[in-house]
Order: sequence, then structure tokens, then C-alpha cells
Amino acid sequence: MTAQDRLTMSLGEAMFTQRAIRRMKPDPIPVEDLHTIVDAAVKAPNGGNKQPGRFLVLTEKPKLQEFGKLYHEAWWAKRRDHEGWLSPADVPSDNKNYQSAMKFADEFKDVPCVVLALAPAGTQLQSVMPSVQNLLLAARGLGIGSTLTMLHPQVIDRVRELLAIPADVDIMCCLPLGYPRGNFGPTSRLPTSQTTFFNAWGSPPPWK
Amino acid sequence: MTAQDRLTMSLGEAMFTQRAIRRMKPDPIPVEDLHTIVDAAVKAPNGGNKQPGRFLVLTEKPKLQEFGKLYHEAWWAKRRDHEGWLSPADVPSDNKNYQSAMKFADEFKDVPCVVLALAPAGTQLQSVMPSVQNLLLAARGLGIGSTLTMLHPQVIDRVRELLAIPADVDIMCCLPLGYPRGNFGPTSRLPTSQTTFFNAWGSPPPWK
Repeated sequence: MTAQDRLTMSLGEAMFTQRAIRRMKPDPIPVEDLHTIVDAAVKAPNGGNKQPGRFLVLTEKPKLQEFGKLYHEAWWAKRRDHEGWLSPADVPSDNKNYQSAMKFADEFKDVPCVVLALAPAGTQLQSVMPSVQNLLLAARGLGIGSTLTMLHPQVIDRVRELLAIPADVDIMCCLPLGYPRGNFGPTSRLPTSQTTFFNAWGSPPPWK
Repeated sequence: MTAQDRLTMSLGEAMFTQRAIRRMKPDPIPVEDLHTIVDAAVKAPNGGNKQPGRFLVLTEKPKLQEFGKLYHEAWWAKRRDHEGWLSPADVPSDNKNYQSAMKFADEFKDVPCVVLALAPAGTQLQSVMPSVQNLLLAARGLGIGSTLTMLHPQVIDRVRELLAIPADVDIMCCLPLGYPRGNFGPTSRLPTSQTTFFNAWGSPPPWK
């Protein structure tokens, strides 16, 4: 069966239930599903069909464990730089998003798969990120969860070393994949009447 | 009917037939469809659910005509900078992609709608481009074509002036929307066995 035929979920269901999944089962993802997901990813638009994007799929347990430690360090380095937080006590207990992300940083070493989106240094992200969203939607269509993450510069050299990524290749984002503990479901977003403008910046759309 | 309920096309069909559409009918796009498309766009992931992305939808005829002239100038400025091409005679006649894009630059002033993806200056594209791909897939699901384009810096100040876009807001990409003259259909991509690596850069995946 082709990748196209396997992705039977509707756009509506996939897009409107694509919440960040950060609680994952350790169960491995079948290679056939990874193949389908990557086949869908590369179909997204890219400038001049030059196809600069590359995907590195990490499934080997010892490397995943090693990578998970680097992810944990990177997550805390981001919190230090962006919010000034140094330890769990600094993370607001009522911020569900950050509490969940902090816990995920601890558990990251046990995810069954990580995909890195890569491209030659200097590639415009406009030519790679649409593929990443296809990848995430295709995963959702197969019942596989993820969350779009980025690595802190502090760990990049060690990630390169672990995965033999050349210095002239950029790491654009990091996508853990796994079957969810818990459910997919709706996300909360600002109403589009507040985030969309018609014909001039600040001019509201013709809907509420 | 909700946006989710209107997007009944399968992920597979939408992703595998999302070719760049550059020959568009002048027919306007119903506001209801634009609303659905933007509702789908904002559901894509973004860092920390901070939702930095904004969409500016251009439907007014005189502004579209003005914008189309700027797009034409921007397209040629890119060709000058990237390929050294200065006029139609310089564009290789056997390069279907560029021939089609060149013709589209001429016709751009007549497209019925353009959407600009915007965000506060300095926003990481990882938090906006997944929304752009949702927008394009949702458009595809409603039979509306597009192509992901970017503007050359040479025209940015005039685009800002035309659409009252503040100096501290970045323009991330430009998405013309219209009903296709011609068909959606498959795109050609490198086999994923060449663009995917397993567990180390350069190490092939377990498929051909």
C-alpha cells in the first residue's frame, strides 16, 4: 500500500487534534510507518524543488539514551537563557505547558524514535519547515505523537558528534516520535478574528 | 459547519497532490473558505503556544494590482541576484519550473487573493511555517491552489507601506491563492532512500 493510501485520516481531524504529545509509550514505531511519514514529509513545497531537507531518524537505543541526556541539558539551557530558571523549583507550578515540557525533558531518553530535520547550512527554513509539518500530520494520521522542539546551541557540537552530522549541515528542529500515553485532542488558540487582518495590518477580518 | 468538519479530504490525497499552482482563475475565494483555511493554519504547532504568527489576507482589487507589480519586480530581483538573469531571454526555455514561475510573475497582479505570513521581528520560523503548511493543505482540501513564495528585500519597504505593516513585523512568506486553471497532481521528489538517514548522517534507511 502506498503512503498516500495509508494516510486516510481527514485533514480536519489531523489538524484539529494535533496537540503536542509529551507522554510517550516506549513501544517502537514500525519501519513501515516511518517510511510513510518521511514519504509524506518530502511532498511539501520547497523553493525551486531543490529539496534541501534531509531527515535523520534515530532508533538505536544507546544513541537515543545519549541523545536524551543532551536534550535534557538543552531544555534547561533554554530555560536559563529565556526565563532565568535553573531548577524545577523555578518553573511555575500552574504553568501546565512548562511543567509537562520539564517532565518530558526527563523522559526524553526513553522515547522510541527521534527525527532531526537537517539542511545545508544557510538553507531558508521556508524550504524545510513545511516538510516538518507534513511529517507531524502524517504521524498524527498513524496515531503517532510528537512535539516540535529545538535544540539549544550549547549541545549542538555533541549532537553532531553523536550522529556524525557535518559542520556544514544545519539542525532545524528535533521531533521525538512515540505512541501517546493519553489522547490526542483539541488545542487552545487565539480566535482567528484577532490574528488575521484583511487588506491592511490591524484591519479585522469579516468574521468574529 | 466547523472548519474541522469542512476539511474532509484525506491527508494522503492532500499531501500527495499539493503541487505548486501558478495558473489561477480570477474567481474570488469565498470568505467562508478563507476563514476555514486560517482556522486550520493556527492549529499547527508553535513554540510554547505563544502563537506569534499573523496572517494578512489581501482581497481588494486595487491593492492586489499594486502588490502584483511589486511581486513581479521582486521575482526578477531574485533572478538577478541568484541566477544573473535580467530578462526572459536569460531564462532557460527547457526549465519548466522557472518558465512557469516567470509567467506567474506577469500574471500575479490578477490573482484573487494573497496571504502574507507575518510575525514579530526575530520570531523563529519554526513557530510560523508549520501554520503556513496547514494553510496550504487546507486550501488544497477546498480545491484552492497556491505556491509558497518569498519576497525580495528590494520591495519590502513598499509592501509595508501598501499594507501598513509595521517595521517591527517580519514578512515570512507570500501565498497567492486561487482556483487552478489545470489540475492538482503529483510532484517529483528524490526517493526518500536518498534523503533519509538512520542513526547517523549518511547511513541509509531500511528501505529502497
